[in-house]
Amino acid sequence: MKNTAIIGSTGSIGTQTLEIARANDDLNIVALAAGKNIKLLEKQAREFRPEIIGIWSEEDAAVLKQNLCDTDIKVVSGMDGLIEIAELQSSDILVTGIVGMIGIRPTIAAINAGKDIALANKETLVTAGHIIMPLAKEKGVSILPVDSEHSAIFQSLQGNVHGDVAKILLTASGGPFRGKDTEFLSHVQVEDALKHPNWSMGRKITIDSATMVNKGLEVIEAKWLFDVDPCNIQVVVQPQSIIHSMVEYRDGAVMAQLGTPDMKLPIQYALFYPERRYLAGDRLDFWKMNSILVEKPDMDTFKGLKYAYDAIGKGGSMPTVFNAANECAVAKFLDRRIKFLDIYRIIEECMSEHKIIEDPDVSQILDTEKWVYELVESRW
Amino acid sequence: MKNTAIIGSTGSIGTQTLEIARANDDLNIVALAAGKNIKLLEKQAREFRPEIIGIWSEEDAAVLKQNLCDTDIKVVSGMDGLIEIAELQSSDILVTGIVGMIGIRPTIAAINAGKDIALANKETLVTAGHIIMPLAKEKGVSILPVDSEHSAIFQSLQGNVHGDVAKILLTASGGPFRGKDTEFLSHVQVEDALKHPNWSMGRKITIDSATMVNKGLEVIEAKWLFDVDPCNIQVVVQPQSIIHSMVEYRDGAVMAQLGTPDMKLPIQYALFYPERRYLAGDRLDFWKMNSILVEKPDMDTFKGLKYAYDAIGKGGSMPTVFNAANECAVAKFLDRRIKFLDIYRIIEECMSEHKIIEDPDVSQILDTEKWVYELVESRW
Repeated sequence: MKNTAIIGSTGSIGTQTLEIARANDDLNIVALAAGKNIKLLEKQAREFRPEIIGIWSEEDAAVLKQNLCDTDIKVVSGMDGLIEIAELQSSDILVTGIVGMIGIRPTIAAINAGKDIALANKETLVTAGHIIMPLAKEKGVSILPVDSEHSAIFQSLQGNVHGDVAKILLTASGGPFRGKDTEFLSHVQVEDALKHPNWSMGRKITIDSATMVNKGLEVIEAKWLFDVDPCNIQVVVQPQSIIHSMVEYRDGAVMAQLGTPDMKLPIQYALFYPERRYLAGDRLDFWKMNSILVEKPDMDTFKGLKYAYDAIGKGGSMPTVFNAANECAVAKFLDRRIKFLDIYRIIEECMSEHKIIEDPDVSQILDTEKWVYELVESRW
Repeated sequence: MKNTAIIGSTGSIGTQTLEIARANDDLNIVALAAGKNIKLLEKQAREFRPEIIGIWSEEDAAVLKQNLCDTDIKVVSGMDGLIEIAELQSSDILVTGIVGMIGIRPTIAAINAGKDIALANKETLVTAGHIIMPLAKEKGVSILPVDSEHSAIFQSLQGNVHGDVAKILLTASGGPFRGKDTEFLSHVQVEDALKHPNWSMGRKITIDSATMVNKGLEVIEAKWLFDVDPCNIQVVVQPQSIIHSMVEYRDGAVMAQLGTPDMKLPIQYALFYPERRYLAGDRLDFWKMNSILVEKPDMDTFKGLKYAYDAIGKGGSMPTVFNAANECAVAKFLDRRIKFLDIYRIIEECMSEHKIIEDPDVSQILDTEKWVYELVESRW
């Protein structure tokens, strides 16, 4: 029996994790936490009967308590609630399916409590990888990547040792605007940017895919997850998302994981690793595929990737600035308050004005985030 | 120190194994055997100073003894010599780089003596897989595939368990006549058939690649090596030989090994498994590759593959007939005594006239080979 806690249970990763729980009796859901979707959380709680559920606001928690008074499910709220869920005695693994830096403290709490992490919360590693990875090593817990690309790299590393890795080949779809120029991007509307060619994901990550900031975040994440120098992480555009990523070894062999675009595969692999269980769904058909396209990313037009390499190269608190500036900018773009290319401008300005803090602790990371938020609010 | 014996040391696999030995001080060559190339064998013996060398004919052995009388290298000949080399006390691993069913007895002898096998001799598994694989299991020795495709499958299986495999995707270049029809094949000359698009190999295997008999032999070999039903072995044409083969798992994930066409990679992987060592040579460049082409094989035109599935489906001594008939036919084609399409006719007639022996022992396998040779000689 695998006792599983999920933070972000009503999001894309959370709901797909619960689909896997439906198909696997030995995946026992012990805790669920969501941000705002109180209705879905209540429904999930009634179906999976966890010990405890969490919702962000106290008001929502009060409503949930009332609605679930016929059950013995404990309802908690806020960061304290998230941390209580992360540390839950009965859980074996925490799925971090939430978006944003809000995931840092619960992830650290879970690691300190000896829980394995099925990590889908990019921001945790991007901003605090220098804290998370050594801590996980110290506590002997596994950080299992749930992101499709990082899972593919993780799968491609099986049966090999770290010293034999030459480089990581991180694939990218190139997003909906692949092949377009800056002039084109200057006219892009929210609706255009939300049309991802292959993956069905949340709104924020879909915009990040269009700017290639998402791939930049993944480069930084890969650096921490796999302990590889960013100069040995090469982004390869693979527009069909058939190859989910690759690893080149020092003998020249390249190991790759391919598949259909189904997030349940990496989630399930993380949950039952190293076992692979049957997963319903389409299979790749190489007899009908014709070709797998690969190309170099256009980092001059899609600057999200360039800024990410800059940020991780500078290190310290700079990846936090890159991430937080992008978060604010994307929110403003989705609210139609700025243009698509302003996302790049905001990231660039925030990064250029930031004074790097070397080896920041969690408070300094969160202070840096706050500094970025205030800067962006005051200026755009 | 890895003490290595090579049978077939002057061939393509043998000479490349020795290149690897030159680059790795801890690969110690203890025995070498060759068929006819007495000059090269003598040169190899002087360079690597093995304990023992073997050559097929007694006459050649006498010459070699004379030429190497200034050394303490023992010279042996014939099948007894091959078996002495296979069983050599000091060796850890036997590289079977010879072509043909002549490899069966030495391979069995080596397994019985507890040696690991770096297997490049297709015919051993094709004709005697039902003997070799259980024997290897019983003796606790590893059969490490050296063939590029089987090594790719083996690499794609690392970190996974047998029960999770859904199917094997065996890639094929399609050979020099890919896309051509039967009418075209009827006019093919030896020179055309010897022009392989990607790999530099021996003459016999290059013709086998043009007929797709080679891929058929590999299907049968894969069945034995990886204990997979032939109906779960799917051949995928990948004309550029970038993907060297793949494994699909029951969760839908496909693991693949890609690389440049360099046989030293699978040889080295087999010799130092599970370690990967640096190997000089070109690397794949995904930024310049553009596309990886895949398609369905044309089994109606290239009947080599179809006959192989028939042969392994019927089992027993039938794969031996398939292999031996092809061996005779290719020899005749290379001697310009038959046409390209006659290779298929000879295989088909021999298979249709053969009375299957179930679970044949080595004598019955060799008798079957002899029966095929005589039938082909008497008729074509």
